[in-house]
Amino acid sequence: MLGLMQDWPLLCHKILDHAGLQHPDREIVSRSVEGPIVRTTYGQARIRALKAAQQLSRDGFKPGDRIATLAWNTARHLEAWYGIMGMGGVYHTLNPRLFPEQIAWIMNHAEDTALFVDLTFVPLVEKLAPLVKSLKKIIVFTDAAHMPQTSLPNVVAYEEWLAQADGDFDWLDLDERAACGMCYTSGTTGDPKGVVYSHRSNVLHAMIAISPNAMGISARDIVLPVVPMFHANAWGLAQSAPMVGAKLVMPGGRMDGEAIYELLDGEKVTFTAAVPTVWLMLLQYLEQTGKKLPHLQRVVIGGSACPRAMTQKFQQNYDVEVIHAWGMTEMSPLGSLATMKPEYQQLTGEARLDVQQKQGYAPFGVEMKITDDDNKEHPWDGKTFGRLKVKGPAVASSYYGGAGGEQFDEDGWFDTGDVAHIDKHGYMQITDRAKDVIKSGGEWISTIDLENLAVGHPDVAEAAVIGIAHPKWDERPLLVVVSKEGKTPSKDELLAFMEGKVAKWWMPDDVAFVGEIPHTATGKIQKTALREQFRDYRLPTA
Amino acid sequence: MLGLMQDWPLLCHKILDHAGLQHPDREIVSRSVEGPIVRTTYGQARIRALKAAQQLSRDGFKPGDRIATLAWNTARHLEAWYGIMGMGGVYHTLNPRLFPEQIAWIMNHAEDTALFVDLTFVPLVEKLAPLVKSLKKIIVFTDAAHMPQTSLPNVVAYEEWLAQADGDFDWLDLDERAACGMCYTSGTTGDPKGVVYSHRSNVLHAMIAISPNAMGISARDIVLPVVPMFHANAWGLAQSAPMVGAKLVMPGGRMDGEAIYELLDGEKVTFTAAVPTVWLMLLQYLEQTGKKLPHLQRVVIGGSACPRAMTQKFQQNYDVEVIHAWGMTEMSPLGSLATMKPEYQQLTGEARLDVQQKQGYAPFGVEMKITDDDNKEHPWDGKTFGRLKVKGPAVASSYYGGAGGEQFDEDGWFDTGDVAHIDKHGYMQITDRAKDVIKSGGEWISTIDLENLAVGHPDVAEAAVIGIAHPKWDERPLLVVVSKEGKTPSKDELLAFMEGKVAKWWMPDDVAFVGEIPHTATGKIQKTALREQFRDYRLPTA
Repeated sequence: MLGLMQDWPLLCHKILDHAGLQHPDREIVSRSVEGPIVRTTYGQARIRALKAAQQLSRDGFKPGDRIATLAWNTARHLEAWYGIMGMGGVYHTLNPRLFPEQIAWIMNHAEDTALFVDLTFVPLVEKLAPLVKSLKKIIVFTDAAHMPQTSLPNVVAYEEWLAQADGDFDWLDLDERAACGMCYTSGTTGDPKGVVYSHRSNVLHAMIAISPNAMGISARDIVLPVVPMFHANAWGLAQSAPMVGAKLVMPGGRMDGEAIYELLDGEKVTFTAAVPTVWLMLLQYLEQTGKKLPHLQRVVIGGSACPRAMTQKFQQNYDVEVIHAWGMTEMSPLGSLATMKPEYQQLTGEARLDVQQKQGYAPFGVEMKITDDDNKEHPWDGKTFGRLKVKGPAVASSYYGGAGGEQFDEDGWFDTGDVAHIDKHGYMQITDRAKDVIKSGGEWISTIDLENLAVGHPDVAEAAVIGIAHPKWDERPLLVVVSKEGKTPSKDELLAFMEGKVAKWWMPDDVAFVGEIPHTATGKIQKTALREQFRDYRLPTA
Repeated sequence: MLGLMQDWPLLCHKILDHAGLQHPDREIVSRSVEGPIVRTTYGQARIRALKAAQQLSRDGFKPGDRIATLAWNTARHLEAWYGIMGMGGVYHTLNPRLFPEQIAWIMNHAEDTALFVDLTFVPLVEKLAPLVKSLKKIIVFTDAAHMPQTSLPNVVAYEEWLAQADGDFDWLDLDERAACGMCYTSGTTGDPKGVVYSHRSNVLHAMIAISPNAMGISARDIVLPVVPMFHANAWGLAQSAPMVGAKLVMPGGRMDGEAIYELLDGEKVTFTAAVPTVWLMLLQYLEQTGKKLPHLQRVVIGGSACPRAMTQKFQQNYDVEVIHAWGMTEMSPLGSLATMKPEYQQLTGEARLDVQQKQGYAPFGVEMKITDDDNKEHPWDGKTFGRLKVKGPAVASSYYGGAGGEQFDEDGWFDTGDVAHIDKHGYMQITDRAKDVIKSGGEWISTIDLENLAVGHPDVAEAAVIGIAHPKWDERPLLVVVSKEGKTPSKDELLAFMEGKVAKWWMPDDVAFVGEIPHTATGKIQKTALREQFRDYRLPTA
């Protein structure tokens, strides 16, 4: 027996329709790539998205076509997304921080047919375009007056192109499971893998994101997504902010402390989200200038673990609540957020910071478990760590073209590749990447814990821990250290510093001093390269 | 091209799984029908719901079976709902306030196979059961010690029945569009009509309900649903509270001011919801005792229009924010809530109350329009009123057995039967029922506005306005009045009181004084009966 309820498919354009009809005058403020701060509204954005959809259709693009964007967070980028989705297309965000060859590889793999691009990246696209045979049209997010001289073929200025449309267009009536967006993960190993979002997954993800246990945003919020739309959907804010009619403030290409502060203060932003690096710049700017954050209420910090001192500074010095969060491109991306449950709500000071160091708990719509290598579940005791696996309507079931199938088990759980423990109240904490964890005599050692400990030594600039083959224990930890300039800490000194702060059997078997630790394009320690470098290393204990 | 996201159907039991795993120790506090206040948790409720599902399966009940409940809000009722849904059954809430013949008619129409019933209603069921041939089993929500002497066949005490299960049961894997619940609307005309909720609609409705533009509840809230589960799903709180892991406080059968106050204060309730009648009793109790509401933050008031004085008292005297809301059984039931948009957020005093007299705006997931009789849309100007039509994933597409098809148009809009205007910021205000509105010379006159005006006269106890046939204008308003005891206001006096407060052509053509105005079982003015009574009435202007 079926229910007798309306068939109202979960389609992304319904989000913009809602914003345009229920919150028509609410602003979208953008720092434009041309320079000035410009203003539009959800009402206008909806009409312009309809025009973009109409123009794409007239240009011959079809439902299912992948249409790339290489752009900062601006109202134009947002309109283009909804225009692409509304004509049945699949927006495909490209990360400009990748190497050009990687971007070209990704575009070819996705067979992108068109590209929306910011002025900033026109020189980059001039190099890329000849390598991508499927590309038929390039639309530069600017007007005729700012259109650059370019060698690109089939190129047009966005405003001129949009002006040709009258907006008399009906959003395509689609299956809610139709693809609407695409984002490639740039792992540290192997080729990038494409995650394909559906209309359903994006809408449900936004509904999960706005709930008070997660981001809890409303029409009364003023939201600044510093996290880029090309970084896992701006953590869903490109959908969740219009879903609730929150005023949006888009930072464009400037993410330095001064630029972000100008928007936070000038637009009275109440809610923002970004990676720790951005907040480091902002906090430095605030400390240098003595400025305060009287409007900002909450900041979501994710992408990598939020340093304890950062949480403390935001909360103590600026009265801004930090929400530590974790997610993945494969999860649309939200997985967990460290909002307070009543069990922790009354905590203050260090005890509260202890909880906020965790990445938080899964809202309804995300299921989590931690297991050993044989898929046996670990208890939620806040200590035992295992492979973190997730399930949900906004979690990938496979990658584009069938890559990386080993991450999906027969029961439909996605193996995040992270290692974590979960406490009795459901708060999860990432302790390592699965491929980095050191397996010593059948037990797991968290490299991140050891690294965090080692960088606490005053003479250490950077530290990485990798597993080195060991005849008895399979693997044992090696601590690799970059010393601070002018400092020469000894092995014994460092080990003595760490002793007693971790279990005895976690202690590194050796310390290697290097001039530099290799990093990925996005700034993470490249442990594969490091392991390669130390492939033949022999531990003194071996 | 389809997205590559997990197939994670929206099933109601996932809500209780989430609550049981992520919020296992959060309490469900109930005023039991036996008397004392009793406590359980989401963790325990989940296990007991699994046991209920297991027992229903063992008893031979099948997916799709309608299983009725005739019960107050308690943890047992909640567990039973999830147990029914989790084995594929369809919970069917019965309203004990209906006449016994109506309940029997409804049970027969739905072909209910089993019935969960509170002790309170056992005598009622002794009368009903022989009339319902499909009924195979009756489960009384109590333990063996409290089980009454009864003539009922196939009857068992809930706790004894549940104790036979071990809980080793897998929730049924269902299509998310499968029916999960049923509720009949008791209109003032015609037979009751059955609304059939699906798992999908209930889950999406709960996701809509928890969003900060709507109820905005979180794990930190303590929620008291005074509105009964048999009254349109307790406005979704039976799903939305466990979805966020909010502590639930269930009032059982006592809804008087003292009993509700005891729970609000003793359990530190932060969020509650009910019809105005309940709050009238509470406010009287508070005024008599001088007690305050230090914990309560928000109260949702709906079911019928919230009197302005009630909003004012809650906010001014008790510092409790009133959220005026509107919905229908056919909408699961939430349609709109008068939370504040930034355009109204700064208002205070009378201007704020003006906004709060409106029923609010539609959250994402509810579409609204107002039209004339020819389905032509009216502008959102806060004045022009028309038929209110809605769309959404939690809005009925038809009634059980195909009744009432005229309320669903070809484009899938549901005609609510209400008449409303919507202002430029999207705030809707109900002005009448469509069948009560008076059509005078092609223009519409709101009877509710005239009634509200008339009862403002100090000598008027109750007032109703109906349309009387008129040779020139089709219909003209007749004001029907019950005078206060010992008072004898004249027609001219009343009309003079109203004059200048409404448009001249809205003024009643006559006033009729009666001893009593007929009411429905749920206390609403029965205008059909009144129109029947005045069928041959001849207006002096005719």
